[in-house]
Formats: sequence, C-alpha cells, structure tokens
Amino acid sequence: MRVIKTIRELRAWRKGRKDVAFVPTMGNLHDGHMALIKAAKARADAVVVSIFVNRLQFGQGEDFDAYPRTLKADSEKLEAAGVSVLFAPDDEELYPRGGQECHVEPSTLQNELCGIYRPGHFRGVATVVLKLFNIVQPDIACFGKKDYQQLTIIRQMVEDLNLNVMIVPVDIGRADDGLALSSRNGYLSAEERQRAPQLFRAISGVVKALEKGTTQYADLEKAATKRLTDLGWKVDYLEIRRSEDLQQARPGDKNLIVLAAAYMGKTRLIDNLEVTLPSR
Amino acid sequence: MRVIKTIRELRAWRKGRKDVAFVPTMGNLHDGHMALIKAAKARADAVVVSIFVNRLQFGQGEDFDAYPRTLKADSEKLEAAGVSVLFAPDDEELYPRGGQECHVEPSTLQNELCGIYRPGHFRGVATVVLKLFNIVQPDIACFGKKDYQQLTIIRQMVEDLNLNVMIVPVDIGRADDGLALSSRNGYLSAEERQRAPQLFRAISGVVKALEKGTTQYADLEKAATKRLTDLGWKVDYLEIRRSEDLQQARPGDKNLIVLAAAYMGKTRLIDNLEVTLPSR
Repeated sequence: MRVIKTIRELRAWRKGRKDVAFVPTMGNLHDGHMALIKAAKARADAVVVSIFVNRLQFGQGEDFDAYPRTLKADSEKLEAAGVSVLFAPDDEELYPRGGQECHVEPSTLQNELCGIYRPGHFRGVATVVLKLFNIVQPDIACFGKKDYQQLTIIRQMVEDLNLNVMIVPVDIGRADDGLALSSRNGYLSAEERQRAPQLFRAISGVVKALEKGTTQYADLEKAATKRLTDLGWKVDYLEIRRSEDLQQARPGDKNLIVLAAAYMGKTRLIDNLEVTLPSR
Repeated sequence: MRVIKTIRELRAWRKGRKDVAFVPTMGNLHDGHMALIKAAKARADAVVVSIFVNRLQFGQGEDFDAYPRTLKADSEKLEAAGVSVLFAPDDEELYPRGGQECHVEPSTLQNELCGIYRPGHFRGVATVVLKLFNIVQPDIACFGKKDYQQLTIIRQMVEDLNLNVMIVPVDIGRADDGLALSSRNGYLSAEERQRAPQLFRAISGVVKALEKGTTQYADLEKAATKRLTDLGWKVDYLEIRRSEDLQQARPGDKNLIVLAAAYMGKTRLIDNLEVTLPSR
C-alpha cells in the first residue's frame, strides 16, 4: 500500500490507471469502514481510501479538535485489507488558503434533518467530496448508508453536476446488540454504550408498525420520540421519509426510511432503517 | 467535425483520448470566439466547442429568449476552423429536471462588479462550466478576457475545487475602431454601433493616466464615468482593480485592470484593459 500525502503524487499515481474505487473517510476506522472497502475491492482493480478530518464540515462547538485521529492503526487496517493507496493529505494540502472561496451548495435537503442542527455541515461535506473526487478521479465511490442524508446529497450532487462517478451505497455495520458502528461510539461511557442500542430499537419499532400497514406517520414519529425521551435521550429528530430522495413520506409510498438523531449524554448518535412495503 | 447532442455520446467519444482542449460558448460565434478556438488548437490534439445558451446564467428580464441562436452558421465556422467536436446539448440534456438542485457557489467576487447588476449570474456560469468540464473532461479550457470577472471566477473555482484543467486566458478581439467583439453588439443600431467604441476609449484614457503614474483611482474612475454619462451612456460601473484577483486596487499595485459595464441604449456592453505599471 502506498501512503500519499500530496495531490501531485496522487495524480501521478492515477495517470493511465483504470477502474479505481474510492472510499473517503475521516479515519478512526471501524468495521463499518471495512465493509465499504470490501465493497470497493469487489468492484475495481485499485482502491483508494482517503483519511482527512475535514474542518469544513464541523460546526462551531462541534468535535473537530477532539475527533479521534488514529493514522497508524488505520494504516495497518488498510494495508491488511489490500488497499492500493491511502491518501492522507494535511489541512494545507486541501485548504492552502486556510478555507474555501468557492463551495458546492447542495440541494435544500441540506437544511433538513441533520442540517437543521448542523448548519453548513452538508455544504462542507459536498465541497470536500467534490474536491476529493476531482483529485482521485474514481470510477466508483462507496458511501455508507449510516450517513443516509449525506449519501442522498452526494448522489444528487453527482447527478446535478454530471460527475462521472458511480455511487455505491453500503449497508450499515452494526454491533451484535444492534448499535450502528460509528467513530463517535468511542465517546460513550460503558453505561451509555449499554443503553445506546435503544436508538436502533426505537426505529426498528417504527419499521415494524409501518410493515403492519400503519400510515399515521406523525403519530408513529411522536410515539417513538417520546419513548426515547422517556429513556433519557435528547432527540433532534425521528422521521419517516421516502428513501429515494428523503422527501416527506406520503401514505401510499412504498420505499420508506426511518431516520433518527439523538443525544446519549453528550454524544450525538444517528441511525436509520429502510423499509419496503409490499404492494397491496 | 462531429456534432454531438448527448452526454452519453460525448463521454464515449472522450474515452481513451488524450490532450483535449475545450471552448465553452453560447454560440453566435464571432472572431473573438475564433481566437479562443485558435488558442485551443495550438495546445491540444482535439478541440471540443460547446454551444449552449445557459438559462441558469440569465436573470429575470435579461435576454435569454432573444439571445441569438445561429447553430447552422456556427457549425460551418467550427468545421472550417478544424474543430473535432461540436457539443450542442439541448436544455433537457443538461437540466433534465428543469433546473439544478445543487450549485457551485463561487467566491464573494460573484457579488461585485457585474454581479451587483446580475444577481445569480456567476453562480449560473460556474455551475454550467463545472457541468461541462465534468462531461468533456478537458485537459485545457480557453476563456476570453473580455469576460474578465467570469475568467477570474472560473480560475478560482478550478483552484478551490482541485479541477485538473488548465485555464488559458485569451486576449479580447476588437473591431478596427476598438470595440470589443461581442454577440450583443448585434443588438446595436447603426448609429449606436458608431458610438460604441466610446467605451473602449474611456477605459483607454484611464489606462494612459495610470501609466503616467496617477494613483488617484477614485478620481480617475469618477472622471471617466462622467465622460461616458455625458456622452449618453448609463454606466453600471467603471473601476480600477487588481488584475490578479479583481480585488480593490491599492496605490503601489503594479498589475491593474480597468473594467467597465455600461448601456448604449438598451444594450449592455462590457470591456476591460489590463495594465502593468513599471517598477520605479
């Protein structure tokens, strides 16, 4: 595995190479990331993984400085997984002037769900992903469904800006008790970690009700939110949406997704579950 | 010359080809465009010219519908000039949903100079240029200095978004009497056409004063604006800026540019002249 720090060296490596798959990450790799890498390896000759903690997508008061940086351990995992290139630029390589003058402004979906609580976050994500796409020039790129809103916004960006990249969505990796794998799980105390699967159970409950044919979306959302609140969570949102584009779900929609973001103590966790209802 | 209407066919043509130069246009080609094409041909094996009147960069009340569409005559000129591909997508090919969800948001320079009078214009320009870049995937792209603010914004976009395209600026083409070549010159009456070089003469006068060492920029701007106004022009702006980034010029700056936009009757014309002052 080559470790590449500069855009120039990455471009030189890329030249003349075919079939490159790309997995952008912020490092602190867990099994969820490894599933992305496996999906990438299955689809291309060469896999590039980037590790870059992107200042642009962290809001004020968020955990940019505290975000776990574990390059040595990550590097060993990637080597063992048969990755071709680890692209690990520093801040100055991607933001030589300290920030960006020019941004990608995603669709208005950026201002909903997580976007309400993290203003500017998806703009920062879309901008850095486009930069990385332009540097790596991948044929395909793998994104986890855990960040489902991010995945949707990236898909819309690819379509709207005519990027020649195939986006491959990869299922959420979960611990045995159902908790979605996330770097931020490392912030949880032992006691919080034990209670954390309540979030998954709450959205699973909503999925079961949907599968039984309930179309009272607002009631389901309210009840599940109350259940979590009673268990001590601070819920940012718990919503039923259309999985295709994350627009408001209407009775009759068959492809739905239940998404939630909530605080367990000081740690903000997100999770979601897709559900496809049978045609009746 | 191949005439290509779809993204799919353009991508198929592009595959495996090296050294592609690109000239994006809105058609109605004049000698200014032909100079861009000449510059492109000198630098690459294959030249792609696009003709697309981009709805996104026209404001309300602007001349989108009236904009001259002369595809047959343009096509003959391009053929004669040895262009490889004319890419002429229709509206639906580039905006299949009627518009864009996701945009490129250029630097704050988009809100100055022409941006004050054409809100959203440079966002529309940057977005379509990025789309076209992603479709054509050129190695180099030629832009005229006549739209100097556009050139600067595209350069910043390329740098900020890490696009792998070399931007080649091409000098303004002028009629014998100094008038900058522009599709919009076609809107002028015979009498207006005769007076139109007054704009070029006004900015030339400012350049001469700068070359003599004057650093009273505001006075120069005011005097030239008054001269034009007295001649019957409605001046949007006439400003001295730094040519490198179009930021405010300060005494001591050596690389300057005088830019102006003004109405001759109902026709809005723009022009500019760069000046490099000797170090003293």
